[in-house]
Amino acid sequence: MTHNIAILGASGYTGAELVRLIATHPSIKITALSGDRKAGQQMGAVFPHLRHLDLPVLQKIEDIAFDAVDLVFCALPHATSQAVIRELPKDVKIVDLSADFRLRDPAAYEKWYGKPHSAPELQGEAVYGLTEFYREEIRGARLVAGTGCNAATGQYALVPLIKAGLIDLDDIIIDLKTGVSGAGRALKENLLHAELSEGAHPYAAGGTHRHLGEFDQEFSRLAGRPVQVQFTPHLIPANRGILATVYVKGDAGAIHDALSAAYADEPFVITLPMGDLPSTRHIRGSNFVHVSVVADRTPGRVVIMAALDNLTKGSSGQALQNANLMLGENESAGLMLAPVFP
Amino acid sequence: MTHNIAILGASGYTGAELVRLIATHPSIKITALSGDRKAGQQMGAVFPHLRHLDLPVLQKIEDIAFDAVDLVFCALPHATSQAVIRELPKDVKIVDLSADFRLRDPAAYEKWYGKPHSAPELQGEAVYGLTEFYREEIRGARLVAGTGCNAATGQYALVPLIKAGLIDLDDIIIDLKTGVSGAGRALKENLLHAELSEGAHPYAAGGTHRHLGEFDQEFSRLAGRPVQVQFTPHLIPANRGILATVYVKGDAGAIHDALSAAYADEPFVITLPMGDLPSTRHIRGSNFVHVSVVADRTPGRVVIMAALDNLTKGSSGQALQNANLMLGENESAGLMLAPVFP
Amino acid sequence: MTHNIAILGASGYTGAELVRLIATHPSIKITALSGDRKAGQQMGAVFPHLRHLDLPVLQKIEDIAFDAVDLVFCALPHATSQAVIRELPKDVKIVDLSADFRLRDPAAYEKWYGKPHSAPELQGEAVYGLTEFYREEIRGARLVAGTGCNAATGQYALVPLIKAGLIDLDDIIIDLKTGVSGAGRALKENLLHAELSEGAHPYAAGGTHRHLGEFDQEFSRLAGRPVQVQFTPHLIPANRGILATVYVKGDAGAIHDALSAAYADEPFVITLPMGDLPSTRHIRGSNFVHVSVVADRTPGRVVIMAALDNLTKGSSGQALQNANLMLGENESAGLMLAPVFP
Amino acid sequence: MTHNIAILGASGYTGAELVRLIATHPSIKITALSGDRKAGQQMGAVFPHLRHLDLPVLQKIEDIAFDAVDLVFCALPHATSQAVIRELPKDVKIVDLSADFRLRDPAAYEKWYGKPHSAPELQGEAVYGLTEFYREEIRGARLVAGTGCNAATGQYALVPLIKAGLIDLDDIIIDLKTGVSGAGRALKENLLHAELSEGAHPYAAGGTHRHLGEFDQEFSRLAGRPVQVQFTPHLIPANRGILATVYVKGDAGAIHDALSAAYADEPFVITLPMGDLPSTRHIRGSNFVHVSVVADRTPGRVVIMAALDNLTKGSSGQALQNANLMLGENESAGLMLAPVFP
Repeated sequence: MTHNIAILGASGYTGAELVRLIATHPSIKITALSGDRKAGQQMGAVFPHLRHLDLPVLQKIEDIAFDAVDLVFCALPHATSQAVIRELPKDVKIVDLSADFRLRDPAAYEKWYGKPHSAPELQGEAVYGLTEFYREEIRGARLVAGTGCNAATGQYALVPLIKAGLIDLDDIIIDLKTGVSGAGRALKENLLHAELSEGAHPYAAGGTHRHLGEFDQEFSRLAGRPVQVQFTPHLIPANRGILATVYVKGDAGAIHDALSAAYADEPFVITLPMGDLPSTRHIRGSNFVHVSVVADRTPGRVVIMAALDNLTKGSSGQALQNANLMLGENESAGLMLAPVFP
Repeated sequence: MTHNIAILGASGYTGAELVRLIATHPSIKITALSGDRKAGQQMGAVFPHLRHLDLPVLQKIEDIAFDAVDLVFCALPHATSQAVIRELPKDVKIVDLSADFRLRDPAAYEKWYGKPHSAPELQGEAVYGLTEFYREEIRGARLVAGTGCNAATGQYALVPLIKAGLIDLDDIIIDLKTGVSGAGRALKENLLHAELSEGAHPYAAGGTHRHLGEFDQEFSRLAGRPVQVQFTPHLIPANRGILATVYVKGDAGAIHDALSAAYADEPFVITLPMGDLPSTRHIRGSNFVHVSVVADRTPGRVVIMAALDNLTKGSSGQALQNANLMLGENESAGLMLAPVFP
Repeated sequence: MTHNIAILGASGYTGAELVRLIATHPSIKITALSGDRKAGQQMGAVFPHLRHLDLPVLQKIEDIAFDAVDLVFCALPHATSQAVIRELPKDVKIVDLSADFRLRDPAAYEKWYGKPHSAPELQGEAVYGLTEFYREEIRGARLVAGTGCNAATGQYALVPLIKAGLIDLDDIIIDLKTGVSGAGRALKENLLHAELSEGAHPYAAGGTHRHLGEFDQEFSRLAGRPVQVQFTPHLIPANRGILATVYVKGDAGAIHDALSAAYADEPFVITLPMGDLPSTRHIRGSNFVHVSVVADRTPGRVVIMAALDNLTKGSSGQALQNANLMLGENESAGLMLAPVFP
Repeated sequence: MTHNIAILGASGYTGAELVRLIATHPSIKITALSGDRKAGQQMGAVFPHLRHLDLPVLQKIEDIAFDAVDLVFCALPHATSQAVIRELPKDVKIVDLSADFRLRDPAAYEKWYGKPHSAPELQGEAVYGLTEFYREEIRGARLVAGTGCNAATGQYALVPLIKAGLIDLDDIIIDLKTGVSGAGRALKENLLHAELSEGAHPYAAGGTHRHLGEFDQEFSRLAGRPVQVQFTPHLIPANRGILATVYVKGDAGAIHDALSAAYADEPFVITLPMGDLPSTRHIRGSNFVHVSVVADRTPGRVVIMAALDNLTKGSSGQALQNANLMLGENESAGLMLAPVFP
């Protein structure tokens, strides 16, 4: 059985990544692509790496016939998503890749995004899209909210540990290194090659990054009390890949055991042997996550690391994994592409 | 039907790339992997990006049971290949990725590689592995010689034109830009990140690069007379990708028509619309080739460009494409992975 | 004696590079910096790598007191320059870094830049700023036109040869690889890190690049007849550096002799020993040019290569070298900084 | 007055960086260069970016006439340094760039470097070369030990705070991002471009990096009690630059005040305004250090960042700064080169 899907916002990186992944998916057919400013253009003109594919022409959202669509991937900018999704037919399934439905609490949304939500009635309905931790809810959901790519990375390191009560909840530091494509195809001076190559810098330091809203929501829910982590993201000269280095207090052996057990049956999350270290290069272009544990020389201190590709497992791969569940397909269909190295 | 294959020299980049491609191939099974210095190790330890796969342990070549193997990919270093292949059972099909069987003429081999060939009886048997131009011979071959990655790139720009007599054979210049993985995982000072990033330089300039032996052989054969091109390769700070900029004398329209016709039914070679320019980023990680034609402002001068990924279409993808033919499989099986961008 | 200078357009890369070089110049003082959109800001806020310097605040051009200024570096965008320079006091010396005064012929300017020149009376007065070939004219000039960075690179390879009649004037091909900072700090999608890193692509192929206007002007003047080269620039993932690979017909020995002789007493242009190959990494961040000659295997064919840093010798270093001459200073003052490698 | 210096181990990156800096130093003359395996070669052949300089030929150490030398920069590998320095004439001043004299305690040396020190009598004499904190001792020293580049970066963030008792000594985490040239020009697989570009990874995690010996020594000395930090270095795809992100508990305002005061009169260490964030690109190729403070959203938590160029301030620039002091020169002579951006 073939499922018809539409991708809204196909002219951005996450839209293009969805097309790349679906290109070899056995049972999903792309029937519509939207790109407002590029409506009328071929996808291969906007993204020449996709020119070998037979794809629908980019069109405006209002010109899409949603009655022929089983599921919509919404890769629109933040804030635009909520307005568009509110208007979609109620029998269409939706995987949203924006930030619009990640936070369930309207007050939290307003705090982190600076304005009231325009579709608060959908905020409660949306399921948080971190597949490994919300699998059953996603399977039955109509609307799934893709997670922040940084937020996903940190959660793979921490969720099983907070759930099991294995770490000190008041001393969690996430130092994160992220590639540049997470910022999208935006025309910003700080994303130019000449500004970015051959160096590193922090940004949104001190607790101002919006993905903290997701950390706060998910970790507090798991702990049953407020949990507030420290989080410093850094931009590194790489197009893809996020590495989270997480500093916690706990027992390294117990932590490694808990992560190994949590991910033992997961198709995409791999716990490395104790002491092995990950690299973003080893998951590049794929849906895999590598999680690693190292005991520090100071007893009771542990470093946990997680690496994933922000465009794949951190965004479009995650979205497809969720769509597979929602459509009753094999969860890993189209997603077993091996990482691209070197 | 599943075909059993072995990969000799699996601890190099082309070996790892074969594993990456075969990971999602529907009917090929890897039953043996060799890596002499790394025998006994898991492939996932040598190439952690492959750790999600269930693969045979690396072993020594002499420990492989070739009677259970339908086809061998030989990704050994130059000169080692010929010694090993000579000893393989005669009923095993072989795709060699080294330079050992690219030149049919023993004298040419000795000229370019500096020593006599040790298996000259196989040089004549081997079919030159540029699929689009030797498809039928490859289908029936026992031994196929993978081409040089630079040599492949130049030939996609030129073969149909020389065949059709459309260009001046005495004025062909190939200025080539190549990524670093073509040099393999070798410990050489000039391949260090600190020596290579953020710059460009020529190498083997003036007609000394070994791939000229392939250009001479193939172009002269097509033309029915000696053809000797100029060829200057340059190393650019990219892991994958080759761009050939080829300067010829001829008629741009006729040249574009000839290339378009030659590749019209090819699954992997795409002729861009006249004047469109290629980028190595648009074929990265894939088996596709982009070919482009631009008329120069000086009448009668034409620039032809071709871009491919040296590890895929320039080496391991080409090898798998040929293996598919030799095994009676769909030629593009396992090879329709879209390029990875950004 | 200290010379007071102003830099107009200091918020771009060439403006910042001028400040970097002048920072250790023994006798030049920066007394004014303009940056229209950033007027009122500290230079250290616009370019934090300069925050250790005590610099004037950025201001609007109309607020600069030019009577206290001996020389103006004009690093404004093309077309803006001509309007501004026309209004400057006649006793102020000017080094222009834009394209506005590179072409002496108003018709040529209009052809390559698409509109009539607004200060044609100054076009004739301006001296073309390639120091090594116009040294005496520059010494006495009021207005010097900085050259195109690509145009400069090609000319270092070719000027002495055309002057000496050593090469076939109808068969000159310049294949050029250039870093990204030559395009400036402009917000263009194709200059984003995610679009540029790890790959290469041609642009303005077929004879459409504006620097051809300079090649045509200078080579035809030297030859005493029209000379029209082929020129294909390529963008490589490096911030600084241009490598020109030039294909000519002539005698390699005579060519190497002519280049060696031409540059024997030059402080910044180094002719490498015959057969040695250059790298943009070896001149990065400096005012040096490396020129190289290789004989091709085909008799009578020669490859000449030249490498320079587009922001230094190709733009701001060249400008300072010219300013030194115009101000009666030692030509190499402030410019002997060694290249930065790795 | 001109000082004659020798550089031992000039064929490595720190040796070449010393030559680059001294190239424009007003009063230092290079009279000897050693490079054992490259003895007899020109420096310009080993490092073509230095070919414009008139330098002594590389020779063996035993062939150097040390009686004509005022000061020796010893850029030899770890362990080799101590054997060579022990044999140098006692009236020659020495700046060592290796790890051999960083740790005063022979037991600590043996713990971190795995074997006994062969010149323990010199360990006590050597002054730790972090100029800002040992200026007077360095001025009078015969032997100065260059610091680890990572160790230097962390100390610029922390030394004034530990000295002032402003932070919790039991909760200090240094998450460090470092460029690749810190590993030297060594032929190691993990330093190849293809292994390093476009990604990030941790190494020596969990408290095993040798620079911890320096942190332990210096921080414990300042605190008057054992201080043991957590330290995780990460390799990023950049040739130069280190960024330390340091997590502490204390008062952000007091911390910023203390750092500002400590560095107020320093020529090379700049405390950024509270909340401003550093980038390694803004100190690249220079001797400057940028130090930054950000208050976390969680009261009492503070993030301190420090950025420097590992080859300059982290090694050869630091060495020259110390040599200036030892020779009675202006401390910043030859070191005011502005950073190279982009």
